Amino acid sequence: MSEVIRVTIWNEYRHEQSKPHVRELYPKGMHQAIAEGLTGNFDIRTATLEEQEHGLSEEVLANTDVLIWWGHTAHKEVSDEIVDRVAARVLQGMGFIALHSSHYSKVFKKLMGTSCSLLFRDVGEKERLWVTAPGHPIAEGVAPFFELEREEMYGEFFDIPSPDEVVFTSWFEGGNVFRSGCCFNRGQGKIFYFRPGHELYPTYRDANVLLVISNAVRWAAPVKREPLRFGKSIPALEPVREK
Amino acid sequence: MSEVIRVTIWNEYRHEQSKPHVRELYPKGMHQAIAEGLTGNFDIRTATLEEQEHGLSEEVLANTDVLIWWGHTAHKEVSDEIVDRVAARVLQGMGFIALHSSHYSKVFKKLMGTSCSLLFRDVGEKERLWVTAPGHPIAEGVAPFFELEREEMYGEFFDIPSPDEVVFTSWFEGGNVFRSGCCFNRGQGKIFYFRPGHELYPTYRDANVLLVISNAVRWAAPVKREPLRFGKSIPALEPVREK
Amino acid sequence: MSEVIRVTIWNEYRHEQSKPHVRELYPKGMHQAIAEGLTGNFDIRTATLEEQEHGLSEEVLANTDVLIWWGHTAHKEVSDEIVDRVAARVLQGMGFIALHSSHYSKVFKKLMGTSCSLLFRDVGEKERLWVTAPGHPIAEGVAPFFELEREEMYGEFFDIPSPDEVVFTSWFEGGNVFRSGCCFNRGQGKIFYFRPGHELYPTYRDANVLLVISNAVRWAAPVKREPLRFGKSIPALEPVREK
Amino acid sequence: MSEVIRVTIWNEYRHEQSKPHVRELYPKGMHQAIAEGLTGNFDIRTATLEEQEHGLSEEVLANTDVLIWWGHTAHKEVSDEIVDRVAARVLQGMGFIALHSSHYSKVFKKLMGTSCSLLFRDVGEKERLWVTAPGHPIAEGVAPFFELEREEMYGEFFDIPSPDEVVFTSWFEGGNVFRSGCCFNRGQGKIFYFRPGHELYPTYRDANVLLVISNAVRWAAPVKREPLRFGKSIPALEPVREK
Repeated sequence: MSEVIRVTIWNEYRHEQSKPHVRELYPKGMHQAIAEGLTGNFDIRTATLEEQEHGLSEEVLANTDVLIWWGHTAHKEVSDEIVDRVAARVLQGMGFIALHSSHYSKVFKKLMGTSCSLLFRDVGEKERLWVTAPGHPIAEGVAPFFELEREEMYGEFFDIPSPDEVVFTSWFEGGNVFRSGCCFNRGQGKIFYFRPGHELYPTYRDANVLLVISNAVRWAAPVKREPLRFGKSIPALEPVREK
Repeated sequence: MSEVIRVTIWNEYRHEQSKPHVRELYPKGMHQAIAEGLTGNFDIRTATLEEQEHGLSEEVLANTDVLIWWGHTAHKEVSDEIVDRVAARVLQGMGFIALHSSHYSKVFKKLMGTSCSLLFRDVGEKERLWVTAPGHPIAEGVAPFFELEREEMYGEFFDIPSPDEVVFTSWFEGGNVFRSGCCFNRGQGKIFYFRPGHELYPTYRDANVLLVISNAVRWAAPVKREPLRFGKSIPALEPVREK
Repeated sequence: MSEVIRVTIWNEYRHEQSKPHVRELYPKGMHQAIAEGLTGNFDIRTATLEEQEHGLSEEVLANTDVLIWWGHTAHKEVSDEIVDRVAARVLQGMGFIALHSSHYSKVFKKLMGTSCSLLFRDVGEKERLWVTAPGHPIAEGVAPFFELEREEMYGEFFDIPSPDEVVFTSWFEGGNVFRSGCCFNRGQGKIFYFRPGHELYPTYRDANVLLVISNAVRWAAPVKREPLRFGKSIPALEPVREK
Repeated sequence: MSEVIRVTIWNEYRHEQSKPHVRELYPKGMHQAIAEGLTGNFDIRTATLEEQEHGLSEEVLANTDVLIWWGHTAHKEVSDEIVDRVAARVLQGMGFIALHSSHYSKVFKKLMGTSCSLLFRDVGEKERLWVTAPGHPIAEGVAPFFELEREEMYGEFFDIPSPDEVVFTSWFEGGNVFRSGCCFNRGQGKIFYFRPGHELYPTYRDANVLLVISNAVRWAAPVKREPLRFGKSIPALEPVREK
């Protein structure tokens, strides 16, 4: 676990170019803000939608331990081939961290199998994230709760499979609750959905948010095992009697 | 719960027509054997691949509480449109029971989001199914274990999301184990995967197997609630302060 | 499932006798208010702390399908013998519904194995319960959320084992969240913890609260199976080779 | 995570003194065999029943990150005070690994809240442990299955709460199955139950068994967070309106 973890941060990178307010917050893009804010023994690269193969070639994915994803306005522009490639790598062990509006990304929806729908509202209200799994590595060093003064609201019912663990549950000023930090095991891979991160607010400069994502990277890093071999017919390991 | 449950049994219905031994076992198809074997306050219809829209029109699905599925050799022939239609209905509350080789059906894979792969072997070995959730309604009336003298083997690792409950775990003569009765909650719907049912054996005439499927139909029947409304922006329920 | 369910409602029955305001709300005790408010094919009896064996003789428990529990100020006065008796019955299949401050009852703590601790505050604030498992039978007929105008607050972290399902998650006016409807499978029995019900408010006259408890009774009713036989040495079911 | 983990291995240490065959296998006790076999950045001490306070003083526990437990014939001799002390430390974050017959230890039963009963048989049969959670850190470096040529059989139904993850599922020659590697989150602590380890066989000299226990120690080590403060009344974090 003390070895370097190879992280790729993928960002759609559209709002930062089209909306002045977002560009001001994240002049180099949210992916760069996250890259600069993570703390750990990480080897970080970034990739964006506009790059060749969205920056997610076979070679890049083969050398990625954990992939962080931020998408919103251009989910549909992500090619199905890349989506299948990423999902397959997750089942083989690559960690996957879906941030905020990535609940609706093709990759996350494919891996969940549900609509991943939710209620939402953007009036810049307060969000308070409560730790509901205090022994989980993703909560390491986090106080019993932390606050984001202004965020978009996401509310239940969040149409996901029952998470394997719910690390954070959010309270919103406007009256809603949300399972904001959700762990899922899929194949040999680990998936973490983390709610905060609307582009209009400086969420990815918040120390708690960056700590949580850093912890999530460590948690989601693959274990070392032989790859899963799928759909295999095998001989009997024990004698089978004639009938 | 004492109201009639509307059940549709879907069968690919190929092996029964192409393989004499299977036709002998199930002259009218496995769907008919299951239809005749279920016990409960059920209103049962059947549907097969060859029918118009595979027998799964909007109207049929709208009037189905629980859909039972058996497929194997023709998964690819099921149209994606029907697959999406069925999966959407499950998220809205329709129960879905995937039998045996339907672990590889398009609908089940789509709802799981994983490869749904496993190890397998067909040498006609003994399977013993142990109850591992004795308080679950699907285990009602079932002894601590029951046996199938000859079955195909399915073995771990079974690449599914962690089930919400594992009602049966199988022991196989040839040395393997398998999570054979798996419950999943998805959206407003309930899904049960039940392992037994290779076409070469009279599994769907076995009293325990039929009892389990009957119990599963009762468990998977939808609760009465308003339909999920997806992706909705909502006004604040509480006052949000200016910041 | 359409058969009559035998329900015993147990109440400590102290606040109603010692506090005038509570007596006014519940002149015959909260147990009677609940008994009058439940709807279903139920055969209901009540029991209280002051009765012989707290009203929970072997005979009463043997004839109880689901036991509802309300305790607060007198947890310590419940005899350990009765606690062990109730817990053993739950493992054998009796449903158990723990209401509000019963999170700290001896029976619930014994069955959970954790401290069952939480944060709390009583200032009569608003509670809004969101449905987070819309396909669950306990949520049948319940809107996406319902509100209690004045309640005591219980807040996370709630030190319980990860529930098998979380049916309701509460938002509180004062800034907290809580897993308010928690399902646990234990042995052959089912347990439901339901948060609302502070004695100072007319919570057990609320239509939604009564609907939820009625649903929970149906859900928690035992399945019909042979009793679990514990700690049994058994002969081999298959030949074991000499080594 | 690369910091040293302080491990205490507790052993009842009776069979090794009373049964010549066991003494031959484990001349210095099973605790010493385990201590010698674990691999990792561990600082290991041992403790036994006969020591003062069973070797588990407040000071020892305060300096233990992960406690490994082996008990069988003398569960009842473990003092309730020490049991409560150990369980409280687990809820505060200390890892706990219960080996084999420790399923019936007072500490494990208290933390589970169920009977922890199971079926058993000792005829020296083959056990094959299948990995059923291949992405879990406890399965790191483990092949899809491994075998123990001779072991005592433990069979389902194993009366434990649904584990948060089942890392291994066992096949037994004599016809049974068992959830052999079970993870539980309790409070701020992590618990792992690992089935193998009957005293009559050299199980704790098996490379796979020792690898699994070493992995489990790493997984169960506490995260760094402030201790849980139980049962706390707190002021409102947000304004509560008069009603």
